[in-house]
Amino acid sequence: MLTDRRRFLGAVGFTLSSAFLGRARAALGAPPPRVDGQRIRGHLEGLSAFGRPPGGTFADGVSRVGYSDADVAGRDYVRSLMKAAGLEVRIDPAGNILGRRRGREASLPPVLFGSHIDSVPSGGNFDGDVGSISSIEVVQTLEEHGLVTRRPLEVAIWANEEGVAFGNGLCGSRAAAGQLVPGELDQVWNGVRKADAIRKIGGDPDRIDQARRPQGSFRAYLELHIEQGGTLDKEGIPIGVVEGIVSIDRYEAVVRGFANHAGTTPMPDRQDALIAAAQLALAVRQIVMAEPGRQVGTVGQLAVTPNAPNVIPGLVRLTIELRDLSDQKIARLAQTIRARAAEIARDTRTEIEINPTSHHEPALCTPEIQAVIESAADALGLRHKRLPSGAGHDAQMMALLGPMGMIFVPSVSGISHSPRELSRWEDIARGADVLLHTVLALGE
Amino acid sequence: MLTDRRRFLGAVGFTLSSAFLGRARAALGAPPPRVDGQRIRGHLEGLSAFGRPPGGTFADGVSRVGYSDADVAGRDYVRSLMKAAGLEVRIDPAGNILGRRRGREASLPPVLFGSHIDSVPSGGNFDGDVGSISSIEVVQTLEEHGLVTRRPLEVAIWANEEGVAFGNGLCGSRAAAGQLVPGELDQVWNGVRKADAIRKIGGDPDRIDQARRPQGSFRAYLELHIEQGGTLDKEGIPIGVVEGIVSIDRYEAVVRGFANHAGTTPMPDRQDALIAAAQLALAVRQIVMAEPGRQVGTVGQLAVTPNAPNVIPGLVRLTIELRDLSDQKIARLAQTIRARAAEIARDTRTEIEINPTSHHEPALCTPEIQAVIESAADALGLRHKRLPSGAGHDAQMMALLGPMGMIFVPSVSGISHSPRELSRWEDIARGADVLLHTVLALGE
Repeated sequence: MLTDRRRFLGAVGFTLSSAFLGRARAALGAPPPRVDGQRIRGHLEGLSAFGRPPGGTFADGVSRVGYSDADVAGRDYVRSLMKAAGLEVRIDPAGNILGRRRGREASLPPVLFGSHIDSVPSGGNFDGDVGSISSIEVVQTLEEHGLVTRRPLEVAIWANEEGVAFGNGLCGSRAAAGQLVPGELDQVWNGVRKADAIRKIGGDPDRIDQARRPQGSFRAYLELHIEQGGTLDKEGIPIGVVEGIVSIDRYEAVVRGFANHAGTTPMPDRQDALIAAAQLALAVRQIVMAEPGRQVGTVGQLAVTPNAPNVIPGLVRLTIELRDLSDQKIARLAQTIRARAAEIARDTRTEIEINPTSHHEPALCTPEIQAVIESAADALGLRHKRLPSGAGHDAQMMALLGPMGMIFVPSVSGISHSPRELSRWEDIARGADVLLHTVLALGE
Repeated sequence: MLTDRRRFLGAVGFTLSSAFLGRARAALGAPPPRVDGQRIRGHLEGLSAFGRPPGGTFADGVSRVGYSDADVAGRDYVRSLMKAAGLEVRIDPAGNILGRRRGREASLPPVLFGSHIDSVPSGGNFDGDVGSISSIEVVQTLEEHGLVTRRPLEVAIWANEEGVAFGNGLCGSRAAAGQLVPGELDQVWNGVRKADAIRKIGGDPDRIDQARRPQGSFRAYLELHIEQGGTLDKEGIPIGVVEGIVSIDRYEAVVRGFANHAGTTPMPDRQDALIAAAQLALAVRQIVMAEPGRQVGTVGQLAVTPNAPNVIPGLVRLTIELRDLSDQKIARLAQTIRARAAEIARDTRTEIEINPTSHHEPALCTPEIQAVIESAADALGLRHKRLPSGAGHDAQMMALLGPMGMIFVPSVSGISHSPRELSRWEDIARGADVLLHTVLALGE
């Protein structure tokens, strides 16, 4: 145990103030603080009630789309946990929930950490929730151990990360990074204006500029998250140290054919928008897979109009999403897809329009922060591995403002955005411990 | 003019009673009766208001799905027209609107004619409406000319012909033909039981058996309809004499993949239900077009779950509809599609289930009735052409009970089930005149 404790102190030592070192040495008789894994589990199970399918259990996943009633209820639950952990809680004008803990030097920029609690429809209970609940747990653990860091701490629960509502993610963290798109608050989704959706969760769209955080306003941003891919699980490694977050480009394709009677229109005379859309969906996959690399491309959303068995589809709208660490590569893939879409439109006598809907730059994690995370894992005796994140995260927005690091825990079989998304309770506690010790190191 | 009138009387003569012939000869000084084309137009425009898109005009088409509020309002309008034409109106237990006109011999089976007024979503103002409004016009014309046929006449406005609600068409006429499927009244669509939908339009599902009409309970069933294909329009022929109605088989395909994160799941590891569904939709088209003939196959309805840009589709449901005059041919095509679906499922690591949802036998028009329609057209100096119907019609249900005939009028460019569906007012009036004179002939 002593060796472990020494290793921990050594690992974080290069950023530790002498005051903290002294106090830590004085506390050498006590083991280094650890989170309460059972409490994390209880809080994750508590949160899972908000957006659970009717009659379902924790294993049936969650539908807690940003700004929905379930999201509002889940946010109330999380705020109560934050207050119970001693945080001073407020909601910023973008609807982000922020909880502050005093530091020994109140004027220093805080260590900021957190995640999100909104989900995709029929999603799992780990994506976002693990980082959110663990961040609160870190503060509660410090509280229980009577540990006050030199820097203040701040926990952030970002609003509408998934972007199911309004089709454009990282809403709260984009506002905090000053990356809102002009006119974004006037977007309408399911008959609701975005400004009103933000009001619904306690934000204030009229003052949204005040959600923006200045450059250098935090010491570092940290986010614990499930990997959502299968690398850690396959290799049996409990801790992922994220190198960077891929670039994500989204497009909406609008395929215009001609709606006509399915019984009386001969096959050669048809202008079937769904036939063209099917060719386009297959082309996206074929083009993305045609070259080596880790890039991915997905048609995840598709809607047919008029959508009746006896009417030839006249209109199809579908999304195309491309991801890679290189934004040049996905821009090039999109060009190839456009060219192919033009051929498909010609062949099927339809019109295909492809409009960009969002662009996220790749975000590299700060090397210094990666090293601190690795040291914390080493001190805890946990194996770790560097890897990129194929998923987007609020962390990529915070990377625009200051140092950023992310910690991954394994996703069983790499399943995510699904009710079968699963991370083992012991892996979650390990990840939360790494977060705790990284916060302690950076808080000095 | 005299020649025309003689030709008309000669044409219908072979079924005319001597009493009618005498009265008709006595009336030789007057021209043969004609419908009022302007009134038909006015009533079609009147009916178009119910289900018109907000802020739209007649040219923007209609969404008057069976059992919807727009359908209920349209039915009220049509009932008022039927009463104004002197019909004795009732609603049968299946929700069909039936209007009866006395004959000189009350005990004889009536001549039955009509159509439907429900539409597909974003449909046109001619499909069904032309036959419904023209049938009422026929009665009103007889009323104004003081003509009473030997047989009673009966106008039928059949309920939910399109079958958008509950996905299974010809609802009212199937009930009248005793062809309801066991358990059909318990089907649920958009949260509503079919029994309650039937109640909403004034039917009585508890007595639905009493909507059934016995064999031989009518002299003939006649239906005027727009062609919905482009044959008559291309050839410039105003009257189509229908030979028969194609067989229609519908299936629902359920494609089960695995919903997973679109950023973190490598392309080769995916089980993308939409990729499989796209291949299936293309296979339907390819298989249907692989052999000569007039058969058609359509994937008209498709729904993706969970349907988010950043989630690999886990489930897709789609409809497959096959039509041909030969039901053996479409059964064989379905077998080929099933075999191909099994290959697609293997290739994409998905499961594909294909379940039949409805089957409509082909229905041949009665040769004698076709001859009467042709004679009526000849007497009116209108060119005509025999052709099959690629669309299903209530007439195919009535063909199970007695003699049946259909009259087509041209659809401009063959467009139907679309707001751009169009038939010329003068062609509609010509078709209604042919209906009038066929009713007169068969009414004796």
